[in-house]
Amino acid sequence: MRSDVESTAAPLIDFQTEPACYRHWRVRFEGNVATLVMDVDETATLAPGYELKLNSYDLGVDIELYDALQRLRFEHPEIGAVIITSGKERVFCAGANIKMLGRSTHAHKVNFCKFTNETRNSIEDATMFSGQTYLCAINASCAGGGYELALACEYIMLVDDGSTTVALPELPLLAVLPGTGGLTRLVDKRFVRRDRADFFCTLEEGIRGERALEWNLVDELVPVSKFVAAQADWARRAADRSDRPRNEAGIVLTRLRRKFESDAVRYEYVDVEIDRDLRSATITVSTPSAAAPSDLDAVKRLGANFWALAMARELDDAFLHLRANENEIGTWILKTTGDSGYVEQIDRVLMAFADDWFIREIRLYLKRLFKRLEVSSRTLIAMIEPGSCFCGTLLELALASDQSFMLEGGYEGDPRLPATIRLTPMNFGPYPMVNGITRLTSRFLNEPDHIEALQVRTGEAFAAAAANAAGLVTFTPDDIDWDDEIRIVLESRASYSPDALSGMEANLRFAGPETLESKIFARLSVWQNWIFQRPNAVGEKGALVLYGTGERPNYDKQRV
Amino acid sequence: MRSDVESTAAPLIDFQTEPACYRHWRVRFEGNVATLVMDVDETATLAPGYELKLNSYDLGVDIELYDALQRLRFEHPEIGAVIITSGKERVFCAGANIKMLGRSTHAHKVNFCKFTNETRNSIEDATMFSGQTYLCAINASCAGGGYELALACEYIMLVDDGSTTVALPELPLLAVLPGTGGLTRLVDKRFVRRDRADFFCTLEEGIRGERALEWNLVDELVPVSKFVAAQADWARRAADRSDRPRNEAGIVLTRLRRKFESDAVRYEYVDVEIDRDLRSATITVSTPSAAAPSDLDAVKRLGANFWALAMARELDDAFLHLRANENEIGTWILKTTGDSGYVEQIDRVLMAFADDWFIREIRLYLKRLFKRLEVSSRTLIAMIEPGSCFCGTLLELALASDQSFMLEGGYEGDPRLPATIRLTPMNFGPYPMVNGITRLTSRFLNEPDHIEALQVRTGEAFAAAAANAAGLVTFTPDDIDWDDEIRIVLESRASYSPDALSGMEANLRFAGPETLESKIFARLSVWQNWIFQRPNAVGEKGALVLYGTGERPNYDKQRV
Repeated sequence: MRSDVESTAAPLIDFQTEPACYRHWRVRFEGNVATLVMDVDETATLAPGYELKLNSYDLGVDIELYDALQRLRFEHPEIGAVIITSGKERVFCAGANIKMLGRSTHAHKVNFCKFTNETRNSIEDATMFSGQTYLCAINASCAGGGYELALACEYIMLVDDGSTTVALPELPLLAVLPGTGGLTRLVDKRFVRRDRADFFCTLEEGIRGERALEWNLVDELVPVSKFVAAQADWARRAADRSDRPRNEAGIVLTRLRRKFESDAVRYEYVDVEIDRDLRSATITVSTPSAAAPSDLDAVKRLGANFWALAMARELDDAFLHLRANENEIGTWILKTTGDSGYVEQIDRVLMAFADDWFIREIRLYLKRLFKRLEVSSRTLIAMIEPGSCFCGTLLELALASDQSFMLEGGYEGDPRLPATIRLTPMNFGPYPMVNGITRLTSRFLNEPDHIEALQVRTGEAFAAAAANAAGLVTFTPDDIDWDDEIRIVLESRASYSPDALSGMEANLRFAGPETLESKIFARLSVWQNWIFQRPNAVGEKGALVLYGTGERPNYDKQRV
Repeated sequence: MRSDVESTAAPLIDFQTEPACYRHWRVRFEGNVATLVMDVDETATLAPGYELKLNSYDLGVDIELYDALQRLRFEHPEIGAVIITSGKERVFCAGANIKMLGRSTHAHKVNFCKFTNETRNSIEDATMFSGQTYLCAINASCAGGGYELALACEYIMLVDDGSTTVALPELPLLAVLPGTGGLTRLVDKRFVRRDRADFFCTLEEGIRGERALEWNLVDELVPVSKFVAAQADWARRAADRSDRPRNEAGIVLTRLRRKFESDAVRYEYVDVEIDRDLRSATITVSTPSAAAPSDLDAVKRLGANFWALAMARELDDAFLHLRANENEIGTWILKTTGDSGYVEQIDRVLMAFADDWFIREIRLYLKRLFKRLEVSSRTLIAMIEPGSCFCGTLLELALASDQSFMLEGGYEGDPRLPATIRLTPMNFGPYPMVNGITRLTSRFLNEPDHIEALQVRTGEAFAAAAANAAGLVTFTPDDIDWDDEIRIVLESRASYSPDALSGMEANLRFAGPETLESKIFARLSVWQNWIFQRPNAVGEKGALVLYGTGERPNYDKQRV
C-alpha cells in the first residue's frame, strides 16, 4: 500500500489486491493458456475464528479470484483458455468454509454469496464473450462450492482415479442449498435431468466416475496418467479457437488511486460522499477535462488510464466497498458531472472499435458493472442537474435507478445551462441486464415502437420536459420544488424497512424474460437467503452452527 | 355437513364450502354476466383474535372466493364475464387482514399467500382460456391485496369520485411486499414503468383518478353516475365475445364424499394414508371398475361424477388439506391403482372433445391441479408398481415428482403383470407447468428430438427397462432391492431440513423459461417469505406486529 495514494486506512473488507499479494491462488502461463491453481493458505483468513482447510474459501479467497479473472482479461490478450485446478493433492475444493458461514452475520452471508455468484457469472461471461474459455480440471475430491466453481466452467474434466467424486452435499450436511448457482446450473445449464439432480443433491458422498459422466455432471473422465496432458490439450485447442490477439501487449491494471475518509471515498473520476443521517451515499462520476481519444492507439496508450476503464474500475470498487462495509447506507444517489460531449465521444470509440479485444473487454466490464449495481440491494436514485453528463454509457446509471429526478430549468443564480440527457447506441444493446435485455427494453417492455422511436433520436439532447415525455426520467421538478422532492424521497426511503425495500426493488427492476443469471439471483439466492434465516440452518441447534461439533442438528419438521 | 358422508370431523382448515354457506361473498347472475360481491362478515373469521374490518380478508374469505370461481366455471356455462366489486359503501377491499397476519405462524402466512396467489392466477386462467373474462369494478378505496385482486382481472374500472384511490401501501405501512402478485403484475402484466411502480409502492395514500389511468394502474375512470351501467355494459360486451354456450345446463359440483380418519382421508377415487414416523402421506388415485364413457352425452350425464373431474376435485382437496393441516408431513408418495386402459380412454375423451366447454374446464382444472402440486413445498415421490395405471393424465403425477421408482418385474408371489407406464397426447401440451412448458419439455430441456421420439411412442406400454431407457423414471429397482431403496429415500427425506428441501425442490423443478406465474411463485413469494422471517416485519418491534398499536416500528437499518 503506497502512502501517497491511500492516505487513510483501507476499509474492513478491501476488494483491491494484486498478484504479488495473493495468498490462495497461483497463476501460471504457458503460451496462450493460463492455469489458475487454487492453493488456499489455511491461515490467511479474512476474519479470525476459522481455518481454510481442504481448499475451502472465504470472501478473501474469492476477492483474489476476482482480481485474477480481471487481470487475465485485461493484462493477457494472448490467453485464450484458462484451466482452473487445485494445488492440493487430496482435494480440489471443499466449497465455502462452513465455520466461516456459521459465524457470519446474515448480511455477510448474503453479501458473500452475491459476490461469489457474480464472480462465477463472470467466468461464463469470459467464456461466452471474451474468447477466454474456462476448463475445470478436477484432480481430487470436489464438493459444494468447489463443484459450483466447476459448473461455471465451459468444460469439466474429472480425474478417473476410482475415488474422486463431485458432490453437492449442502442439503444433507448443512441444511442449506448449493446456492452459488449450483442448483440452477445443474438443470438449466448442464440440463441434468431434474430427478437425477434431486437425487445427486441429497447425496453426502457425491457421485463418481461413469455415473457422473452419464448424468452430465462432468464432461470427460480422464485416467490419472493422462490427466495433465489432456487438460493442456483441451485448453490449447480452445485457445486456438479464440479470437484474442497473440502478439499484443496487455493493459496493466494499475493500482487504483483512492482515498478513504470517514464519510467519503475519493477516486480520480468517482467520488463517494456519505450522509449518515439520511443513510445515503452520493456517488458522482466525472469526466476528465482533457479531450477524449478518438483512435485506438491513443486509447491503448492510455491503458488503465483510459477514462471508460478507469471509471469502471473505480465505480466497481466503490459499489463493492459500500455493499460490504457500509450496509446501513441504504440509498445510493447517482450523479454525473462533466462534459456530455466527452462521454459521447467515448461511446463513439466503444462502438467504432467494438471488435478490438481491449474495447470489447471494457464494454463487457461496463455491462457487468451495471449488473452489479442492480443486484446490490440498495435504493438507486439518479439526480440529473445542470453540469451533469448523463449521456450514453453514463445514462445507464439513470436507467438502472429506481427513480430519477431531472431538474426542469436551472437553479436560481446558476449560470449553467439546464441539464439534458442523451442516448447513444450504447443504450440499445451492449449493456443487457441480468435478464438478458437492455434497460430500455425492460423499461418499455410493451412498447417496442417507442424504443425504435428513441433509437432514431440518438444524439438528441433531451431537456427535462422532453426526457419526461419520452419516459426516460421519473420526475422533473423545477428549482422551487427540487429540494423538497429530493428531501422527501430520501427521508422516506430512510424511514422504510430496508428488507422490504430490497424485496420490492428486486421485483420491480427486472420486468421481462429470465436467464440463468437472473434465475440465480432471483430464485436460488432468495431461497438461500430465506434458508439462511431459518433456525434449521442458523439456530442454536441448526446444521450450519453445529457442523463439526459431532452434535446432530435438531430440525423443526414443519414444511413451509 | 351430512353425517353419512363425513363420518369424522372436518379438519382445522376445510377447503370445501358451497354458496349456501358463504359468509363473505354474494354471487348475482344477470344473463350471461355474473357479479361477485365481496361483503366480508367481520365476525366470521377462520381463527379467533381479529375482525375482518374494511372488507379485509383471511384464508376463509379466500376459500369462498375459490369455491365461487370453480362453480362459475362448471355450474355456469352461460356466464361469459364476471364482475368483481364490493358490497361495502366506503371500501372496495383493504387487503389481507393485518392483525391476522401479525398473529399467524410463518407457515400459515406462507400457505395463506400461496393459496391466494393460486386463486388469483385462476382468475387469469379463466379469462385467458375459459371464456370467462373478469372485470374489477373498484367502487371505493382499494388497497393492498384488494388492488392485487384487481390486478388479476382483465380490466380495471375505477369510480371517478374525486377521492377513491388504488394503493399498494404494504411497504411503508407494514414492511412487507405486495406479495399476492402485485409487484410482478404491475411491471410484467400491466407494464407500469418500473420507476412509477417503485414510487407507487412507497405511497401509503395511493394514487387516484387521472394519474392512476395515465400510469396504467387502472383501465378506465367512470363517473359515479355511470359506474353501474358502465360495468354492466363492459361485461356484457366481453360475455358476448365468449365462446361459452348459452343454453346448456351447468355441471353441479356436488359435495365431495370424503371421510377423515386420524391418519387417513378417504375419497371415492383418492385415498390418503399418513405415516407419521416417516412423515409421509401416500396418495393413491384409483380408477372406477365401470367402463369409461366414450361420448360427450355420457360424460355430461355423469357430470361431477365423471371420473376425471371427480378425481381432480378429490386430489385438489387432498393437496389443500395436507398442505394446510398436515405440514409436518413432508413427503407425498404418489401412487395409482386400476386400469390403464380406463385412463387412456378418458384421455381420448379429453382430446376428442377438447373444444367442448365442459371438457375444456376439466382439462384446465387438471392443469391447475398439477401446478398446485408442484408449488406445494412437499417432496414428491412416485411409486410405480404392478396394478398401477400411470398413463397419460395420471402419468403427470410421476412426471411432477422429484424422484420416481418403478418396480422392475413383479413382486415375489404376486401374479399381476409387471407395471408399465403409457404416454398419451395429454402429456404433450394440455398440462403446462407454471413456467409455461410441459413436464416433458422441462425434463428434456435440451433434447427436443427425444420428445419427438417419445411422441411417436404414444400409447406404447413402457416396462421398467424401457421407461428407464426413455428417461421417464428415475430408478427401477427389482423386487430384491425395492423395499430398501424406498426405505432409504423416505428415511433420508425425513431426516433432512424441511426448509432446505423446499428450497432445493423449488429450484430443480422448473428448468426452462419463466412466466408471470412462475415469477410470482419463484421470485416475489420467496422474497416475501424471506421478509416474513425478518425482525423488521415480524419481530417484537416489527411493523406487522405493531400495526394498529400506534407504536412506530423500529427497524434494523442494515441493507442485506
